[in-house]
Amino acid sequence: MKERVKIAVIGCGSRGLFLLRMILEHMPDIDVIAVCDLYEDRTECAKNFVIQMRGITPAASCDYRDILSIDELDAVITPSAWEAHVEICIAAMEAGKYVGSEVGGAYSIDQCWQLVHTFEKTGVPCMMLENCCYGREELTILNMIKKGLFGEIVHCEGGYRHDLRDEVALGNENRHYRLRNYLSRNGELYPTHELGPIAKYLNINRGNRMLTLTSMASKSVGINDWIKRNRGEDFENANAKFALGDVVTTMIKCANGETITLTHDTSLPRPYSRGNLVQGTRGIWCEDTRGILLDGTDSNPSYAHRYRSLEEYMPDHEHPLWRDYQAVGGHGGIDYLVLSAFFDSVKRGSRVPIDVYDMASWMSITALSENSIAMGSSPVAIPDFTNGRWCSREPYMRSKYCLEEVCFDCFES
Amino acid sequence: MKERVKIAVIGCGSRGLFLLRMILEHMPDIDVIAVCDLYEDRTECAKNFVIQMRGITPAASCDYRDILSIDELDAVITPSAWEAHVEICIAAMEAGKYVGSEVGGAYSIDQCWQLVHTFEKTGVPCMMLENCCYGREELTILNMIKKGLFGEIVHCEGGYRHDLRDEVALGNENRHYRLRNYLSRNGELYPTHELGPIAKYLNINRGNRMLTLTSMASKSVGINDWIKRNRGEDFENANAKFALGDVVTTMIKCANGETITLTHDTSLPRPYSRGNLVQGTRGIWCEDTRGILLDGTDSNPSYAHRYRSLEEYMPDHEHPLWRDYQAVGGHGGIDYLVLSAFFDSVKRGSRVPIDVYDMASWMSITALSENSIAMGSSPVAIPDFTNGRWCSREPYMRSKYCLEEVCFDCFES
Repeated sequence: MKERVKIAVIGCGSRGLFLLRMILEHMPDIDVIAVCDLYEDRTECAKNFVIQMRGITPAASCDYRDILSIDELDAVITPSAWEAHVEICIAAMEAGKYVGSEVGGAYSIDQCWQLVHTFEKTGVPCMMLENCCYGREELTILNMIKKGLFGEIVHCEGGYRHDLRDEVALGNENRHYRLRNYLSRNGELYPTHELGPIAKYLNINRGNRMLTLTSMASKSVGINDWIKRNRGEDFENANAKFALGDVVTTMIKCANGETITLTHDTSLPRPYSRGNLVQGTRGIWCEDTRGILLDGTDSNPSYAHRYRSLEEYMPDHEHPLWRDYQAVGGHGGIDYLVLSAFFDSVKRGSRVPIDVYDMASWMSITALSENSIAMGSSPVAIPDFTNGRWCSREPYMRSKYCLEEVCFDCFES
Repeated sequence: MKERVKIAVIGCGSRGLFLLRMILEHMPDIDVIAVCDLYEDRTECAKNFVIQMRGITPAASCDYRDILSIDELDAVITPSAWEAHVEICIAAMEAGKYVGSEVGGAYSIDQCWQLVHTFEKTGVPCMMLENCCYGREELTILNMIKKGLFGEIVHCEGGYRHDLRDEVALGNENRHYRLRNYLSRNGELYPTHELGPIAKYLNINRGNRMLTLTSMASKSVGINDWIKRNRGEDFENANAKFALGDVVTTMIKCANGETITLTHDTSLPRPYSRGNLVQGTRGIWCEDTRGILLDGTDSNPSYAHRYRSLEEYMPDHEHPLWRDYQAVGGHGGIDYLVLSAFFDSVKRGSRVPIDVYDMASWMSITALSENSIAMGSSPVAIPDFTNGRWCSREPYMRSKYCLEEVCFDCFES
C-alpha cells in the first residue's frame, strides 16, 4: 500500500481550484505534481497556488495529454467542463492512471460504452467523484436502509433543485459550460447528485438495474426573465431561445420494480434542495421536511402521522464514516470524503466504490432523457452496461468507503 | 334567487354521513329531503339521522332513480362509490337536477364524454365537489398567483400521499370501494385533490389545456406487507396480487408549456401530504416546507436561499373566502366551502365554479394513466373536452366562490 499519492488536477476553473485548495490544505499525503486547464491563465493560477501552498512547482500544461504522459503520476481528477470528462477518463485509463471524474451527464450512449470498454480493456479503475454519495444524510439513510429499517424499498425521488440563473446567464463572462449546454440541450442534464445515492440504495448494477425512463420538460422562460430584470433587455441572451426546459422530470423503472423520479430544476427561484425521498414498506425519509417516519413508531391514526427529525436517528444510525470524520473536526465535508475514497483506492491499488458501470449508467440518463423528450416523452430503454453481470455482481465490501453496505469491519480495524 | 335548497344525498357511507352531518348542523338553509344508498342499513341510518337532527322524515330509497324523480328536489350530491359517480351525475342532469359529484377518477374516456354531452344537451350544471380547491393554502396561493407574485407559472407538483393501508386492507369489512379498485387497476386512481387546484392555477380549459401525459407505477408490495404484519398470513388478500403500484407518478404537459407532476401514494407508511409545489419565474411555494420564496425578497447567494413561512403572507394575501369564513368562526372547512359554492350556484340558478369540462378533464387522467402504464409508460393524448373552446373561454367571474380569479367585487357587496 502506497503512503503517498501523486496526482494531477485537470480542469482548474472554480470547481478545480476549490478541490485543489482542499487537497493542498487538508490532504498532506497527496502530492499535486501537475495541473492543467484549457485556459492558460487558469493553469498558471493553479500552478502558482501549488507553489504558494506546498513550495514545489508542479508540471503545468494546457494539454492534458502532456500531463498523462508523466511517468510518476498515480492518478488524475477531472474538474473540467462536462464535455471533457469522458474523453479525459478514457485517455487516463489508457495511460494507466487511476481517474476520478467530476460529475455530469453523458452526451451519447456510445460515450458511456467507450468508458466501459476502456476499463475492461485496461483494467484501470475509473471512479465518478459523486460527492453526494458521501453526504451525511445520504450515508445515514444508506445505513438505515441496509439495516432494513425502511423495509423493502419501493420508490425514491431526488432532484438537482438549485437556483443557478446567474451562473447560467453570466456563463460567457465566467467561461462556464452550463450556458452553452442550456442553450442547446433539453434533458436531465445533471442527474447524479441525487441518482448516485439512490442507485446505491437500490443496488443498481449489483442485483438490480435501471430498465427504462421517460422524461418531460416544461417551457423555458426562467433564464430570459432573470436576464431581462437583472441585466436588461440588451444583455446577451436576453431573448435567446434556451433549449432546456426550466423543470425537467424523469421517471425511471428498475428491474426489481422500484421507481425513481428525478427533477432538474435550476432556472427558477428556489431554495437549494436535492429533493430526496425514500419510501419503503416500513418507512419513509423526506429531505424537504428533514424527517423520517418508521412504521410502528407512531400510533396516531394515519391522517395524523408525523415525521420525526432525522437528527433523532443520528445517535444510533449515523454512518461511521461521518462519525469519525466529525470526531476529528474534519474539513471539506462531502468533497473531502469522496476524494479520500478515491485516493484510498489508489493507495491500495484496489477497485473503487463508484465504478465505471455506475458512472456509465448514471451518466447515460442525460442522453436518454434528451432522446425521450425529443420523442414526446416516449419511454426509452436504459442499456445494461454490465452485459448481464448485474444479476450476480456482489456488493463491493472492501473498505470503509464502500457504498453497497456499511463495512463495519473496516471501521473496527 | 332561492333562499332555500332542497337536496338529496346519494351515497351514505362514511363520507356521505360526514357531509350529511355538516349540512344538518351548519347549513340551516339546506333541506335534506331525500337520502339514498345501495345498502338498506346505510339508507336507514341516514334517514334516522335527518329525523333526529331536523325533525322531518326524508324520502329514502336504495335506488337513486326513485330519488331523482322527486319533483321538488333542486339538487343532489353523490358521496357514493367511485364507480357510481358518473352514472348518477348523468341521470341527475337528465332529470333536471343540479348535481354535485364527489371526487374520483374516470374508468374510461367515453364516460367523460358522456358527462360533457349530457351537460351540453340538458344545460343542467354538474359540479365536481373538489374540496381541496377551497383549501386555505390553495386559495391563498391562487390569490397570489393571480396577483402575479409568482411570475409566469412553469411547473406544478401535487399528490395524494396518504397512508390508506388499513382502509384498503379492510375494504370488504367496511364495504369500501378502494379495495376492489386496488386489486384490479394500475394507474393514477385519485388525481383531483391536487390536480383541481393546479388546473385552476394554470387556467386549464380557459386559455390553456392539458395535452399529454405519461405514467409509471412502482411494484406493489405495501398492502400485502401491512396485512401480513397486522392481520396475519391467513387474512384475506394477504397474498393477493394487487394491480395498483404502491407509488404511481404521472407527468402532464400543458398547451402553454407548463408541466405537472402527480403522485398517487397510499400504500406505504407516510405522513399525509398533498405534495403541492408551484414554481414560477418569480417565486415558489412548497407545501412540505410550508414555505414560500419570492424573488428579490432574499438577498443571500442562491445557495443560501430560504423559504419564508406561508403564514407571513397570510395577512396580505389570504383569500377573502377564508378570511370571512374564519371571522365568523366557521365549521367544516373545505367541505363546508365547496358545498357552499355548489348550493350558492343552485340558489342563483347560475353556472358552477368547477364545471363539467373541469370534471371530465380532471377525471380523465385516471383512465389515461392506466392506458399509459399498460403500454409501458407511453405518452397518451388528453382529449380536449371543450372541443376547442378552451382557446377563448373567459374566466368565470360571477361569485365569491369562483376559482379563476378572486372576485373581489363579490366580497365588497
